[in-house]
Amino acid sequence: MCELLGMNANVPTDIRFSFAALARRGGATGPHRDGWGIAFYEGRGARMFHDPQPSAHSEIARLLRDYPLKSEIVIAHVRRANRGRVALENTHPFTREIWGRAITFAHNGQLKGVKKTPLGLYQPIGTTDSEHAFCWIADRLRARFSTLPSLSALDRALQELCSEVAERGVFNVLISDGRTLYAFCTKTLYYIVRKAPFGVATLVDEDLRVNFSDETTPNDCVAVIASNPLTRDEVWSELPLGRLSVFRGGGLL
Amino acid sequence: MCELLGMNANVPTDIRFSFAALARRGGATGPHRDGWGIAFYEGRGARMFHDPQPSAHSEIARLLRDYPLKSEIVIAHVRRANRGRVALENTHPFTREIWGRAITFAHNGQLKGVKKTPLGLYQPIGTTDSEHAFCWIADRLRARFSTLPSLSALDRALQELCSEVAERGVFNVLISDGRTLYAFCTKTLYYIVRKAPFGVATLVDEDLRVNFSDETTPNDCVAVIASNPLTRDEVWSELPLGRLSVFRGGGLL
Repeated sequence: MCELLGMNANVPTDIRFSFAALARRGGATGPHRDGWGIAFYEGRGARMFHDPQPSAHSEIARLLRDYPLKSEIVIAHVRRANRGRVALENTHPFTREIWGRAITFAHNGQLKGVKKTPLGLYQPIGTTDSEHAFCWIADRLRARFSTLPSLSALDRALQELCSEVAERGVFNVLISDGRTLYAFCTKTLYYIVRKAPFGVATLVDEDLRVNFSDETTPNDCVAVIASNPLTRDEVWSELPLGRLSVFRGGGLL
Repeated sequence: MCELLGMNANVPTDIRFSFAALARRGGATGPHRDGWGIAFYEGRGARMFHDPQPSAHSEIARLLRDYPLKSEIVIAHVRRANRGRVALENTHPFTREIWGRAITFAHNGQLKGVKKTPLGLYQPIGTTDSEHAFCWIADRLRARFSTLPSLSALDRALQELCSEVAERGVFNVLISDGRTLYAFCTKTLYYIVRKAPFGVATLVDEDLRVNFSDETTPNDCVAVIASNPLTRDEVWSELPLGRLSVFRGGGLL
């Protein structure tokens, strides 16, 4: 199993506090030592970092903990390998260009028989179940829409496609096209939406505390999604099972 | 205009010395301040770093100068924008998955009318001429080969496709599929192949000197390609104009 972290905000927002917790779970406070990756959207571009090293001991993860990259949508993943060896090409998030957009995908869970499903345009580079499932979704999206679909049309298509993949096993997943952060969950994913009045929060995984009112303006809205709650003094809610949760503008629609 | 840096070695090799020179040209010793990027192949995976900040002042570039990532194929680029604004999505190298491989591309030059050429499967994410030309090449490769072609078939196809693009202007380019590093040059690209007996070299751009015999074994072969020679005490050769140069196993075929 792996752990996921997603963020969607209405203004470019620093993810370092949450990423610090996730990174610790990659080999320090958690067993997810088989690589990690993160995608930061900046407009239509996405900045990606991948490392097959455990995130708790990764030089690149250390840089990201110190360096305030701001983004409206972030997807991160720490990996504990089950299918597919520990290798750069098997670290999530995976990305493909569809309709001139960078689409990213990170998954937690195992999917039975998914590698037997035939693929078309999009082919996996690595050997994980997850990337195969992503390519299958990318193929279906491409077949359904020849150009970038409207927000609501993509919402509906991803709901259908994720439900179909989820029949094969555990499918906790974060997907983004740079406009929306999608979460689909068959087991557990938690989320929190932070907005004014902002308070103080302390990480579960290390002795790190932040006062969000120092970092934000009263109009900011920031949704964070994680496999397990990242802070000990806030109320995290579970996402509904078996359906697509749609985050835009820093909130759950 | 921009500057390119490529490396192909027969063993995973540290590029930090050469990257230090290129990074200085991004806003310190050169005017290429409009972003930079680098791709490191590790097997079938490629680790990519992109930053719209000048490389001479980039935190991520600083990390890479200190952190010994080893790779058999590297493509790097510092950008001076002409077409396409300064933005993350306009920084090279660009990448697309073709035949389950990460294909990367970085370009220096301007191409007249290339954005009017129709595209198919592959669409640009940003607004540069360069990415449009890359998508055109990717489309043609995909149309010609349904699965990963042999080394020699890909060599021939890229020779033809690059020659066709080069009719539109300056087309100095580095391309890789993770097996081969291709260089195509219509203006100037220099290269050097370092092998035993290894000597000492000093960068043109800063007071940095390395004794390669401390860093290598007698069997290592390392080819480096750059828009301008990076060292002042070695002999760099010009690549032939108007035809594809093929680097495999640390040498020019």
